Amino acid sequence: MNGISLDDLLPEGLSDRLKRDANGLVAAVVQDAENGEVLMVGYMDDVALARTLNTGRVWFWSRSRQEYWRKGDTSGHMQLTRRVRLDCDGDCVLVEAVQVGAACHTGSRSCFESGGDLRVARRVDADGNPLDDAMPGPASAKQL
Amino acid sequence: MNGISLDDLLPEGLSDRLKRDANGLVAAVVQDAENGEVLMVGYMDDVALARTLNTGRVWFWSRSRQEYWRKGDTSGHMQLTRRVRLDCDGDCVLVEAVQVGAACHTGSRSCFESGGDLRVARRVDADGNPLDDAMPGPASAKQL
Repeated sequence: MNGISLDDLLPEGLSDRLKRDANGLVAAVVQDAENGEVLMVGYMDDVALARTLNTGRVWFWSRSRQEYWRKGDTSGHMQLTRRVRLDCDGDCVLVEAVQVGAACHTGSRSCFESGGDLRVARRVDADGNPLDDAMPGPASAKQL
Repeated sequence: MNGISLDDLLPEGLSDRLKRDANGLVAAVVQDAENGEVLMVGYMDDVALARTLNTGRVWFWSRSRQEYWRKGDTSGHMQLTRRVRLDCDGDCVLVEAVQVGAACHTGSRSCFESGGDLRVARRVDADGNPLDDAMPGPASAKQL
């Protein structure tokens, strides 16, 4: 066990349920445990997921930097793990976390607030009938 | 323009903002427009994203079947586009949609309800102190 922490090990039985991509990663959606806002999407390998379950803090594998990344270590904007669920086919986890400060590196609360609204040209009801308000979200939102 | 529908075209300026993976895809998180529940994660190429913005219905690119997939065409469990946001680095969209019936192919409302809770071994506060209730989510939840 030289150099291996127990925190890096997945709970028994979980490994077989994960459907990792070609790089050994699953997607991780982080949702604000307090208000349900979707804050960001990152990626986790087995170790990052294990640490997220075992240490109380949310960890990712940074695809751009090719290294482990404990959210908040440089920014102070930690994510504290509250609940983690796997999806039906094992290629994605939903992490409910307490977000300290901003989730986005831009300083926005969420990465989607930062990127902003895309123009939705058509909204319909379940019968396919157009809704009246076929305009994008809040009038103040940044749009393309 | 033979065989090309205007619905398949992204709004001007959006293409340059997308950071697609090696397969030309961005991740798409679908959130229930009515209660904020995260329902599923799929993947979209340019055409699927354009159709989601332009037709009122949510479209994906199915990585397993390698074909376009308009949610609900076989199940009846449509997703009706209400709002779409891009994230800060352009590799993920957050789609708020009205979900008709179940989002998951298993019949569960969400794919995360279907996959279920993973065991969270430790929960801490912002100072790193353990919380008392270091047990996973609802007692009734399926856990590993």
